[in-house]
Amino acid sequence: MTTNGTDTRDVTELTAAAAAAAPVLDARGRAFRARLLRAVAEAIEAHRDDIVTVADRETSIGATRLRGEHARTAYQARLFADVLDEGSYLEATIDHPTDTPMGPGPDLRRLLVPLGPVAVFGASNFPLAFSVPGGDTVSALAAGCPVVVKAHPSHPRTSRLTFDLLAGAARDVGAPEGTLGIVFGQRAGADLVADPRIRAVAFTGSLRGARALMDVIATRAEPIPFYGELSSLNPVVVTAGAAGRRGREIAEGLVASFTTSAGQLCTKPGLVLVPAGPDGDRLVAHAADLVGGAAPGTALNDGISTAYGTIGERLATSPGVSVLAEGVPVLAEGGPAEPERVVRPRLLSLPASELRPEVTEECFGPLAVIARYRDDDELRAAIDRLPASLTGTLHAEPEERDHVVELTDLLSARAGRVVFDGFPTGVLVSWAQTHGGPWPATTSPHTSVGPTAIRRFLRPVTWQNAPAYALPPELRDGAVDIPRRVDGRWQPPGQ
Amino acid sequence: MTTNGTDTRDVTELTAAAAAAAPVLDARGRAFRARLLRAVAEAIEAHRDDIVTVADRETSIGATRLRGEHARTAYQARLFADVLDEGSYLEATIDHPTDTPMGPGPDLRRLLVPLGPVAVFGASNFPLAFSVPGGDTVSALAAGCPVVVKAHPSHPRTSRLTFDLLAGAARDVGAPEGTLGIVFGQRAGADLVADPRIRAVAFTGSLRGARALMDVIATRAEPIPFYGELSSLNPVVVTAGAAGRRGREIAEGLVASFTTSAGQLCTKPGLVLVPAGPDGDRLVAHAADLVGGAAPGTALNDGISTAYGTIGERLATSPGVSVLAEGVPVLAEGGPAEPERVVRPRLLSLPASELRPEVTEECFGPLAVIARYRDDDELRAAIDRLPASLTGTLHAEPEERDHVVELTDLLSARAGRVVFDGFPTGVLVSWAQTHGGPWPATTSPHTSVGPTAIRRFLRPVTWQNAPAYALPPELRDGAVDIPRRVDGRWQPPGQ
Repeated sequence: MTTNGTDTRDVTELTAAAAAAAPVLDARGRAFRARLLRAVAEAIEAHRDDIVTVADRETSIGATRLRGEHARTAYQARLFADVLDEGSYLEATIDHPTDTPMGPGPDLRRLLVPLGPVAVFGASNFPLAFSVPGGDTVSALAAGCPVVVKAHPSHPRTSRLTFDLLAGAARDVGAPEGTLGIVFGQRAGADLVADPRIRAVAFTGSLRGARALMDVIATRAEPIPFYGELSSLNPVVVTAGAAGRRGREIAEGLVASFTTSAGQLCTKPGLVLVPAGPDGDRLVAHAADLVGGAAPGTALNDGISTAYGTIGERLATSPGVSVLAEGVPVLAEGGPAEPERVVRPRLLSLPASELRPEVTEECFGPLAVIARYRDDDELRAAIDRLPASLTGTLHAEPEERDHVVELTDLLSARAGRVVFDGFPTGVLVSWAQTHGGPWPATTSPHTSVGPTAIRRFLRPVTWQNAPAYALPPELRDGAVDIPRRVDGRWQPPGQ
Repeated sequence: MTTNGTDTRDVTELTAAAAAAAPVLDARGRAFRARLLRAVAEAIEAHRDDIVTVADRETSIGATRLRGEHARTAYQARLFADVLDEGSYLEATIDHPTDTPMGPGPDLRRLLVPLGPVAVFGASNFPLAFSVPGGDTVSALAAGCPVVVKAHPSHPRTSRLTFDLLAGAARDVGAPEGTLGIVFGQRAGADLVADPRIRAVAFTGSLRGARALMDVIATRAEPIPFYGELSSLNPVVVTAGAAGRRGREIAEGLVASFTTSAGQLCTKPGLVLVPAGPDGDRLVAHAADLVGGAAPGTALNDGISTAYGTIGERLATSPGVSVLAEGVPVLAEGGPAEPERVVRPRLLSLPASELRPEVTEECFGPLAVIARYRDDDELRAAIDRLPASLTGTLHAEPEERDHVVELTDLLSARAGRVVFDGFPTGVLVSWAQTHGGPWPATTSPHTSVGPTAIRRFLRPVTWQNAPAYALPPELRDGAVDIPRRVDGRWQPPGQ
């Protein structure tokens, strides 16, 4: 099982193989790629226990969450197979020749086609669902793009194991050589992004890592899309009504949400706007109690635990900030094998009027900042000063209707998903999901979760006055198994 | 009528007004914006003769083509109003709560929402259809984004006149202040792109101009999408069969296509692959005859005529290149008022084996290069060396079917539109159109023509477990007037 750094020559060989595979993978069609994705799901399912064991050893995430992530990863691959069968993602469009105010128009037929080889950067915090067998990989494969994954250094063995399973599934269904590749090491990642055969990059990770790769892309002769999911504060707003009616319940949900997975989730709620006054005080006191009794977690790697300590300390000692609670320092028996990676939950607080960039920095780990607002003007001004996020959450009561409408507008302007009376952790893979938001949440207006994530790896092509035999099958006259837009009108499959 | 350079403070005022208008324009809804776009079309139509006169004086494009462009511009605004009425561009999606292998899923509802204020850079060669009242402006307005246009210096008065008509239409229907703005001058353009309130840029122009603006974007704290339509060689492939059967007709179509509008079209065919041998010789000789008798055109501005001379001379004197024909130098009576802007058509030739980056540079103006290939291997290798384009064209005969399929694949890998047995100039505004291609044709996988151009200015937002009153109307339960995807299945309007 090799997980050593990949040298430049090997990266070039992999991308050359990917480029050779690209037209074949496209030409094999949707049914073939659906079969490939289902084979991927089966291979992952058949080795669940091995995968969970190896991933837990490397990441200390815990077998329970990893089993959930494993189920999600297989589910996701199957969902994308269904999306291929359904076929609307192709946006098949036919305009027959017609007279227009500008003269006679030609026969135009449009379809989305794959971009070509895609580089996927695995994330530290989801060794399965956002790594080798994850959403970026299966959405690129669904699109018809070969994938070269850059394994995350936090879990090289999990990456290798799952890669071998995916590559085996690809071989079994007869996918072309070069459909899947993997590289290890930071330099190989930079080589990959610089390689002219790579046509798009999907990345989940830090703002700093993303900036470094964007700098590499800027040196390319041909720029390519960089789809990054980067940094997110995920603010939670609690109204006066909600604090009064169910402050205790909100405190419990909040602490569970920001400490689960040791706070190492992209959607961890990092900032909570709570009203000043006794209802808010009670909510905050209960949250502090819970944090004070909370067990420590284990960071995914040394870099994260170090950064958690540094950023957490910077936040805690910022003017105006007070430390409300810290979790217990002692590990439970049978705790993590790597004590230097232990991270203690922390709850900080400051007046909302003092929110500023230094205290709205994302702190990856089990830390949340409570910001207390005195009135609605202060709340609005506070939201206005927050960086954009993947999510924005609102706890409110039905009688606050006008206020809710206004706050929803403020939050949806700064987030890709607005959560009502719940918590942002937990991202269902489904058609209506959005996992993306304005910068710095993501680099561009896209989602990296759900069927529409395929769109990142496609581009439109139009065939003008083409003979039927030169058209993709989905664009020929006669009945097809996908929906199409014909002369401006949507037509169901079978027409 | 002010067309002086806009100073930085005024740019800031315009973007601040646009930012204030953004939520209002969004909240007014689709029906209001459809009314706005129809009012825009009416205002343009009501002043056709004025617009054509001013535009012809500034650009020397000629009244006939400008009347066509004028009709297209009004048609385009109305088409986007129809797209708003139809509503599928919103990609409305509802997933009801359901049990999943990962546990119970929430209620998720997704819609595309506007990005915010958009900067639109007008093009030199389409003073209407790709300038102030053009496709970028109407697709951004349709999306719900206020627009600040940077007027092209080739036609400031046309820009001002059409801007005043658009602004008047916006006022008449009650659009918020700041829905439309205009700036003049290169520095104002850079200020605009650097302004934090601008959320996306649409640009049609040169690779050099685009690179300069992309450098400005790289200095922003928050990167934004830059949708540029830049440079395109638009190769034409003539097979042996087509050269033999209809070489004369192809020569005539080709010369008409690359000399129309003095060759100043993004889709001008700049490189033609013609077989060696007598059929190809006859085609080329007829094309040379036609070019030799062709009248000169007038460049849109001094910069273009200078660049046409410089680049054309560089191509003509490149090793292996011969000059087949040049158009007559004498202007017809009543010719253009600016003799220094006169550009003579030119036809060059070289062996396809000698194609290399120096001779595949786009030369904006009435120049085409014929590359002669000896066999199919040489043809394939030649296509492989071409930069990507907006279009690729193929002239072939039905009995060359296998060859056509192969060439179609080669061309569609390098272009956004593949034209069969025709010519690439003339871009119909319709649902199935693609005006975009891999770099350097465009900066990202998008089209700037047709209804799907709206997608550039939208981002997805998901509402999770939202009360009905906090949802956009299109996502509420009950019948709506747009199609939606509900629990994974497409539903027609009215359900």
